[in-house]
Amino acid sequence: MTESPNKRQKRTGDDEKYHLIYWPVGLNPTHQLINFSGEHIRLVLEEAGVSYTDTASLKDGIKQVTSHISASNDGDEGNPPPLAPPILQHGSLTLSQTPNILLYLGQQLGLASKEPNGLYQVNSLTLTALDGLSNEPHDVHHPVAVGLYYEDQKEEAKRKADDYRENRLPKFLGYFERVLEGPASKGGEYLYGGELTYADLVLFQTIDGVSFAFPKCVGKLKDSGKYSKTFALYDRVKERERIKAYLGSDRRQGYGMGIYRHYPELDDQ
Amino acid sequence: MTESPNKRQKRTGDDEKYHLIYWPVGLNPTHQLINFSGEHIRLVLEEAGVSYTDTASLKDGIKQVTSHISASNDGDEGNPPPLAPPILQHGSLTLSQTPNILLYLGQQLGLASKEPNGLYQVNSLTLTALDGLSNEPHDVHHPVAVGLYYEDQKEEAKRKADDYRENRLPKFLGYFERVLEGPASKGGEYLYGGELTYADLVLFQTIDGVSFAFPKCVGKLKDSGKYSKTFALYDRVKERERIKAYLGSDRRQGYGMGIYRHYPELDDQ
Repeated sequence: MTESPNKRQKRTGDDEKYHLIYWPVGLNPTHQLINFSGEHIRLVLEEAGVSYTDTASLKDGIKQVTSHISASNDGDEGNPPPLAPPILQHGSLTLSQTPNILLYLGQQLGLASKEPNGLYQVNSLTLTALDGLSNEPHDVHHPVAVGLYYEDQKEEAKRKADDYRENRLPKFLGYFERVLEGPASKGGEYLYGGELTYADLVLFQTIDGVSFAFPKCVGKLKDSGKYSKTFALYDRVKERERIKAYLGSDRRQGYGMGIYRHYPELDDQ
Repeated sequence: MTESPNKRQKRTGDDEKYHLIYWPVGLNPTHQLINFSGEHIRLVLEEAGVSYTDTASLKDGIKQVTSHISASNDGDEGNPPPLAPPILQHGSLTLSQTPNILLYLGQQLGLASKEPNGLYQVNSLTLTALDGLSNEPHDVHHPVAVGLYYEDQKEEAKRKADDYRENRLPKFLGYFERVLEGPASKGGEYLYGGELTYADLVLFQTIDGVSFAFPKCVGKLKDSGKYSKTFALYDRVKERERIKAYLGSDRRQGYGMGIYRHYPELDDQ
């Protein structure tokens, strides 16, 4: 009964370029968050060394984003409409949802595991990193409503930030430390199977984000020595040749007002 | 470069039973939420008509759950430790994360689409339904901290509930209506490709959940006629032979104190 998804897929030519559709920095007109999710997609494309376009650097980029997510777009024969960016176009395929795009690209670009059933483990680790180190940090500064400004939910944010720093962040870092200590990591350098997968890129990016948002808290957690394998993985990814070049380029964007925001009142005092 | 994940997978025999590891009703000892995510897995197994075990109905079920998520479990050669249930065991494979387990089962059981690249579209629709109609309703009654009681965050919950009912719930229902109106649904009876996939089961379950939590609000939204295809899909899934039998059985659990809770003060007044 099991069928291979790729055998069933319409192959897009290997020469088809990848197109990332995402908010240009600071240009989201709808007062919603520019949520930095596009960055996960960029890191995978950069690590793989493939050519791609990115609406974040196009003059009319914003128009492409809004036309994709317009209420008048109901998709096409093969593609339902996307609810929100990031959106990936590759040949005739239009995909949305960050972990879904990563699942596709990971297979396309050889950044999912080659281990038996490894793809599912990489997907699971990715979903967990996004839950605890991306979605939750976002909710810290927007606990009531994504459509309201931070200033209109500051009190609630303070309470949520206390819980996040004291309970949730250590819980998730402790989980990844345990994954790296476990036998399925095959040595503890990368999360799964002894080689880099896109889950490692996601973990790198999310730790980079929480370090920006909560520098004092993350500094203390790092100094505690309890999460040494996790922070070593962060350093290891950061020093990879293509990642290092990307981080030093003008394609890498600042955090701005996205998922990861640094409000000193929400960090350790 | 693209490799089939299934070709790479260690095949577990077709005769291997599926084992769902999830909190027995009312027996979660850690004051965390019994979050009803296991229900998505059950619906897929029930629709497929396969045999499975479920710790929710075992006397020592709770022990199995806590041993899997214990801080002393670091997994095995092929499987990282799970952070939280639901957990699926199938042969030597141990998987966690709801959308990830659904991705695996959908392929195993013929409930992912057979369309080219359909698997990714089904995964995307599933992630969106879980985001907006499961994670967000959960956060409505726990906006500050999952480790605190609802009674300790009632004020914040009231504000978040107002936003959820006024903005977020209509946004997500409107999105799925648009998906059903679009050509990729192939007729608007099911979300993708003209046939039932696990994304339809997830949408059914999440609408059932928000209807339980916010009956007045959902009643009004239904009566508005704006989401007629979406509510028709809900009815269509509910009437499927195996789903109907399951919903009428004692295997189907009540909502209790999980993701979906009915607090009248959080509904329309």
